Amino acid sequence: MTINYLRDGNEIYRQSFAIIRSEANLSLLAPDVVNVAVRLIHACGMTDIVDDLVASPTAVASARTALKAGAPILCDARMVAEGIIRRRLPAENTVICTLNHPDVPQLAQQLATTRSAAALELWRSHLAGAVVAIGNAPTALFRLLEMLDAGAAKPAVILGFPVGFVGAAESKAALAADSRGVPFLTLLGRRGGSAIAAAAVNALALEEE
Amino acid sequence: MTINYLRDGNEIYRQSFAIIRSEANLSLLAPDVVNVAVRLIHACGMTDIVDDLVASPTAVASARTALKAGAPILCDARMVAEGIIRRRLPAENTVICTLNHPDVPQLAQQLATTRSAAALELWRSHLAGAVVAIGNAPTALFRLLEMLDAGAAKPAVILGFPVGFVGAAESKAALAADSRGVPFLTLLGRRGGSAIAAAAVNALALEEE
Repeated sequence: MTINYLRDGNEIYRQSFAIIRSEANLSLLAPDVVNVAVRLIHACGMTDIVDDLVASPTAVASARTALKAGAPILCDARMVAEGIIRRRLPAENTVICTLNHPDVPQLAQQLATTRSAAALELWRSHLAGAVVAIGNAPTALFRLLEMLDAGAAKPAVILGFPVGFVGAAESKAALAADSRGVPFLTLLGRRGGSAIAAAAVNALALEEE
Repeated sequence: MTINYLRDGNEIYRQSFAIIRSEANLSLLAPDVVNVAVRLIHACGMTDIVDDLVASPTAVASARTALKAGAPILCDARMVAEGIIRRRLPAENTVICTLNHPDVPQLAQQLATTRSAAALELWRSHLAGAVVAIGNAPTALFRLLEMLDAGAAKPAVILGFPVGFVGAAESKAALAADSRGVPFLTLLGRRGGSAIAAAAVNALALEEE
């Protein structure tokens, strides 16, 4: 009646990261991106996301410095916020998701856009030096780029991982082509999602795996 | 300064599902599994998950009947619980995640297992006829199979989507090989995750896309 499987959480993590490091081609990544990539792979079960991973040269350092300094973490979706492991955060950083704020439906109507994009209006006072983690909505990433074009304060890093078939690949390509001077980490193509976005924050929050 | 992209949420959904239906090979799926598969693909951005999708013959019908009758939804992770769209649920079904219950760390120690697996001890009184959605921990799925072997009440359906490199493929293979008489839906291999598990619940909660 007892099934034979590994039940030790720490050992499961250790073996998982060992398998990832033995199977994934991490050789082309910048040294400080490797730890982050391992954790992104761990979140999705796919070693080949490395091929689509793009990090600007200062993305990892900028994110780590910001988090240590207490930067807030701005998330487009509640699932991203839930996936962030609070005990890894170096400065009890605030995790903010404005999607369910009562003003958002009306803002979406006024701005003729999705709720996910409209919710960024409520990020404005937190944006300067923040860690932005987008794990769901392409429209949120597009809207962030528009806000930066219009002069919004720059975050410390954009973790751009929207997922799906309409706008996801396009919004991430737009970020990678011109991140408006903001360091960024993204996964080109359709893949992404809240688990990957949260894993990026978790990896950047604490260097040890 | 304005980027050209689709901003109408309903139209984004419509186009997404149309792209999925044009690209994914849905022809080998049972008719009642197709809608569910479309939504799983939508959650992860990958049409080829169809190849790894396994549904027992009565899984979709059993899940829909249970949800309409008010069955609770038992989730292994907070991210799964957050991903369930409450307004789609047909009977204001309760969404339960016991992972953060204060008794769980001690239970994990007593049972010499992970917190994710130990948290299932607190499912026992809810299990009969429930919808189980596992989107993170292989040990939770293994533990559920052990509890069923030991005579625990049967849920209406097991949505088995743990992700990762240690135990994920193995636990889902064990479910597909012998689901202990419980209807099930699973994605073989390493892929899975909370977004896919939540998408399965959302698809089964309401037939319309």
